[in-house]
Amino acid sequence: MQIAIALYDRFTALDAVGPYETLGQVPGAETVFVAEQAGPVRNDSGNLALIADRSLADVPRPDVIVVPGGPGPLPLAADGPLLTWLRRADATSTWTTSVCTGSLLLAAAGLLEGRRATSHWLALEELKRHGAEPTGERVVTDGKYVTAAGVSAGIDMGLTLLGRIAGDDHARIVQLATEYDPQPPYDAGSPEKAPAHLVELLRSHAGLSLT
Amino acid sequence: MQIAIALYDRFTALDAVGPYETLGQVPGAETVFVAEQAGPVRNDSGNLALIADRSLADVPRPDVIVVPGGPGPLPLAADGPLLTWLRRADATSTWTTSVCTGSLLLAAAGLLEGRRATSHWLALEELKRHGAEPTGERVVTDGKYVTAAGVSAGIDMGLTLLGRIAGDDHARIVQLATEYDPQPPYDAGSPEKAPAHLVELLRSHAGLSLT
Repeated sequence: MQIAIALYDRFTALDAVGPYETLGQVPGAETVFVAEQAGPVRNDSGNLALIADRSLADVPRPDVIVVPGGPGPLPLAADGPLLTWLRRADATSTWTTSVCTGSLLLAAAGLLEGRRATSHWLALEELKRHGAEPTGERVVTDGKYVTAAGVSAGIDMGLTLLGRIAGDDHARIVQLATEYDPQPPYDAGSPEKAPAHLVELLRSHAGLSLT
Repeated sequence: MQIAIALYDRFTALDAVGPYETLGQVPGAETVFVAEQAGPVRNDSGNLALIADRSLADVPRPDVIVVPGGPGPLPLAADGPLLTWLRRADATSTWTTSVCTGSLLLAAAGLLEGRRATSHWLALEELKRHGAEPTGERVVTDGKYVTAAGVSAGIDMGLTLLGRIAGDDHARIVQLATEYDPQPPYDAGSPEKAPAHLVELLRSHAGLSLT
């Protein structure tokens, strides 16, 4: 099994690394970071670079596709090569997944038409404009499409899909190995839970940067 | 404020990226990935490489030090250059932090002698042998030393310290922006919660690799 995590200029690092450390633990799977061109890819803040070990052209038929998000109304990747690759790779993939605004890229590629899906809470309306049916859930599975809410939700998505692929006990082992027993020091992780003035502050900055 | 995240051969990626996406959001701070030599640094699985933009020598006096963990009894970094840098940088740091077995490196550098600290649950005994006083907590603060439990605990550590440095509301904004409202699909994230046979399975593999 081959798992391809697609990087592009200004991706969000945790969107990619959360699924990497969970879903990437499918026994015997090859996990590979890909981008339009092999080499370093800078994230949204510009002070982190992950290396894409292979180009999109080198990995045409992964079994699992993972698309991270990035800031902005539509992540910068919404150009030709990545969307073209997504459409072609999706034609033979077993699972096509996204984290955060990565679902906007899947939708822009035409893959989520009429499907239930999720995205960063600030991007749900835009996801709808691209033809998907957004839900407020953290992880949404519709057929072979598994989408996650914002940034950190990729960890929950990764464990969920890992359980589907490799069995519940293997996913539990990975949860235990990564000591994923979350204890956030605040209870502000969703717009329903965070103080209203902070939700409004982020809304007013949406489109610039999520942080 | 300068935040240095120290990379080394076979580090665990999420240990570094969790604090990066949270603690790294201190307003106005410069966050920089460092390693013995600038350039790509491969992780524990070998299929992920983060770029260290600067060498240890280039970043001698960061305000905040973050040391990720890596597999094995003592992470491979336990050689001269990183420990030497840690001792020197710690002499002027405001905060010195670790995730997972990164605390073994702090301890090996002599920085946690007699201090309350934590580590990956499989490494607590070794942490004690290195002179620290391990606790079972997820995030432990003792003076300027902030240590986190295994892998994913770096997110909780990052938000905790972000709140101390930049205020509770800023940390809440970052929690909301990263949609950190965890909903793990299983309840197996600690040895107290996971099925006993899975805990034993991981114990029997400890020292080889945590996953």
